[in-house]
Amino acid sequence: MLTYQLKKQPGLPLYEALYRCIREDIRTGRLRPGEQLPSKRSLCANLKVSKITVENAYNQLLAEGYISSREKVGYFVEAVQQLPPQTPKASQTPPPEGKLLDLSGNGSPRFPFTVWSRLQRQVLLDYGQKLLLPLPNQGIGELRQAIAWHLGAFRGLEVNPEDIFVGAGTDFLYNLLVQLLGRDKCYGVEEPGYSKIYDIYRCAGARCTLLSMDKSGVLPDAATQVLHISPAHHFPTGLVTPLSRRRELLKWVGAEDGRYIIEDDYDSEFRFAGRPLPTLKAMDTAGRVIYMNSFTKSLAPSIRISYMILPSSLMEALQTRLGFYAGTVPSFEQYTLARFIREGYFEKHINRMRKFYKARRDTLLELVAQCPRRLQVLEEGAGLHFLLRVDTALTDPELVAACAQKGLKVRCLSQYYRESPPENCRGYLVINYSGLGDADIEILAKVIKTL
Amino acid sequence: MLTYQLKKQPGLPLYEALYRCIREDIRTGRLRPGEQLPSKRSLCANLKVSKITVENAYNQLLAEGYISSREKVGYFVEAVQQLPPQTPKASQTPPPEGKLLDLSGNGSPRFPFTVWSRLQRQVLLDYGQKLLLPLPNQGIGELRQAIAWHLGAFRGLEVNPEDIFVGAGTDFLYNLLVQLLGRDKCYGVEEPGYSKIYDIYRCAGARCTLLSMDKSGVLPDAATQVLHISPAHHFPTGLVTPLSRRRELLKWVGAEDGRYIIEDDYDSEFRFAGRPLPTLKAMDTAGRVIYMNSFTKSLAPSIRISYMILPSSLMEALQTRLGFYAGTVPSFEQYTLARFIREGYFEKHINRMRKFYKARRDTLLELVAQCPRRLQVLEEGAGLHFLLRVDTALTDPELVAACAQKGLKVRCLSQYYRESPPENCRGYLVINYSGLGDADIEILAKVIKTL
Repeated sequence: MLTYQLKKQPGLPLYEALYRCIREDIRTGRLRPGEQLPSKRSLCANLKVSKITVENAYNQLLAEGYISSREKVGYFVEAVQQLPPQTPKASQTPPPEGKLLDLSGNGSPRFPFTVWSRLQRQVLLDYGQKLLLPLPNQGIGELRQAIAWHLGAFRGLEVNPEDIFVGAGTDFLYNLLVQLLGRDKCYGVEEPGYSKIYDIYRCAGARCTLLSMDKSGVLPDAATQVLHISPAHHFPTGLVTPLSRRRELLKWVGAEDGRYIIEDDYDSEFRFAGRPLPTLKAMDTAGRVIYMNSFTKSLAPSIRISYMILPSSLMEALQTRLGFYAGTVPSFEQYTLARFIREGYFEKHINRMRKFYKARRDTLLELVAQCPRRLQVLEEGAGLHFLLRVDTALTDPELVAACAQKGLKVRCLSQYYRESPPENCRGYLVINYSGLGDADIEILAKVIKTL
Repeated sequence: MLTYQLKKQPGLPLYEALYRCIREDIRTGRLRPGEQLPSKRSLCANLKVSKITVENAYNQLLAEGYISSREKVGYFVEAVQQLPPQTPKASQTPPPEGKLLDLSGNGSPRFPFTVWSRLQRQVLLDYGQKLLLPLPNQGIGELRQAIAWHLGAFRGLEVNPEDIFVGAGTDFLYNLLVQLLGRDKCYGVEEPGYSKIYDIYRCAGARCTLLSMDKSGVLPDAATQVLHISPAHHFPTGLVTPLSRRRELLKWVGAEDGRYIIEDDYDSEFRFAGRPLPTLKAMDTAGRVIYMNSFTKSLAPSIRISYMILPSSLMEALQTRLGFYAGTVPSFEQYTLARFIREGYFEKHINRMRKFYKARRDTLLELVAQCPRRLQVLEEGAGLHFLLRVDTALTDPELVAACAQKGLKVRCLSQYYRESPPENCRGYLVINYSGLGDADIEILAKVIKTL
């Protein structure tokens, strides 16, 4: 028979105390699933409480699914989730890792933990209660000022902090843009390209058109009204849109009302040779270019901070029509990042990473050069990937399978096409080297030699 | 004449060094807007560099908008944004505050800074590099387990952590739901209600229908396919949907394929009398209820973490069709919150806040009771607001204006209707007391006395 010491506590009805005792026993497994509970009558006699107390407790347990009743038989313990174990030690739960060396995804740049952690402590001390206030939906002023300053100093882009909108990742911002520019518009995206962009516009309800690329990038087709491109460095081809094409695109966007260009500048920080061309945003005099960037590549994918820079008229429209949206980035991360930029750490980090990635790229290029078989490297001047042309009789799926068999997870250029890829794009591996360790390079070297 | 000591640096072309010197002078204001630059010829003579070096430097400055050229006249400094001041001291930039005592918005509960900050340090030490890995889009396992455990222990809701999806605020999750359930469906929302919910569904492209309330809550009309409600505590009326109506709603949702209920449980933690009723989610046997909650009210609005619990079939559909969306909450905040919950601090915080809010509510109720004029308080049992019925000849806009004149920013119930409010809802002030300080209470007391 269940026996509990039920004490009267101020504010806690007796039935509630009983309910809690039984629930605790069920949750800890002392009462096992399927076990029958005493009848109400016998329990109230045993505990010396009124029948209504037991009745209320049982009803609460019934309502919450801890027990069930079978007519004329009695009450039975249900199978419920048990109490969780203690917080697991980090060392016991290593990140899930595939067995293959993965060249298709994003890596984690070497992150300045010590600095970040110190800034976090400073932010906590300096801002305190201020960190708890509701946030301006476009991001805190300090962060927008810091971003504007960074873009001015290191990207040659003069922007008004008031035109910056900060969000938890570009996915959210793309969705916001569809709601701002209209889902009745037709969004042109690059083919081949980063397939997610197409997916997001489609799922947001917009019409989409795939724009094939020539050697200067894309040109919008007749249907396109909003053009989404990454002129600084196209993924996966690595192409940089030359100035002449940039001028053509700006001419196109200005030629008709309601046209816009979304300039995705996602990894422009990692350019290894020469100076980057000015952004379309910097060249835009008509107020039709929306600039986007993210700290995902330049800091870490787990820091969910992206931003866009809108023409002032669009920012006004956004705040008027969509101003009800709350901000999406925690204040704490925003203040920390603002300091990280303002105090020069972001620039230092980028420079360090650029050197690091360049060295890694050079190692890979050397490896390729030493290969007996003819391999050709293309578009290696920027970003964190290059194309490796393999002179092979294998089809692309066969090539990918052959690499996988040797422990190398990699994708072909043709796999980044949504529609059927042109015949001449066969045999190009997309080598994304941002996430490789030293040991990985050795594996890669071995695989390349056998290609 | 401009004079710079241009030194050859490895990796830095001379034109780039010159470009940087001039840019720096423009950015710091040493070269003023409108000032004419030396001609290319004279500058290259002065600096003893080749003409092509000066030309390249000027072209870069031109391309980036630092200078402009006037044909046959020369080059002129443009007005550009100057370097920003140093990081402002927190004390110099107090949060913007209105002069009115504001009873219409959200406050900041007293936040356990010391604990949070300690957990942050632990997380940094324990997880290190793991914090940089790309995140599972539905949230890290530790946080989902902690949420499931919390809901089981304190809300009587048994959920599988695999069915939880974490996002940066409910706004993002609502948008995701429209993309998951379909924007061709008709979404029924409460009238009166939290107007943002209607706005979000509309802007996401879904059809919406306003459902008027009776004393038990809402009933879906013939058009409704997805019903968005907050049965635990409706805003702004404060109504709790009784069990009988909950059963009716579950019957409705199960009666036709494709119907869903979105149960917004946003401030269920703050119930002052009696036990909360079981959630619709707990009562749902057909897998048609989506549960939503957020840490915005229970922790701080600046911590952007919300979550939803989907029926397993919907989670599968989400990952299949919308799995390309990246997670939106930084890993760092997720790990910190997971520990905060698992180590019992969240429960302690909620209990402390509940006491705090209850005391504040009781103070307000006492104030009202002492008023000579007849004021009536309604629906004060839960949540962080109640209704104050004022026996007045004033219209609602006049009442709001009268309060504002006395320093009290407050809204009337009728202002939460999208369409014309019924006549009998006149004279109800919505008193949201979550953000009041002790001094505020005194102002409020004075205003109430004169109502």
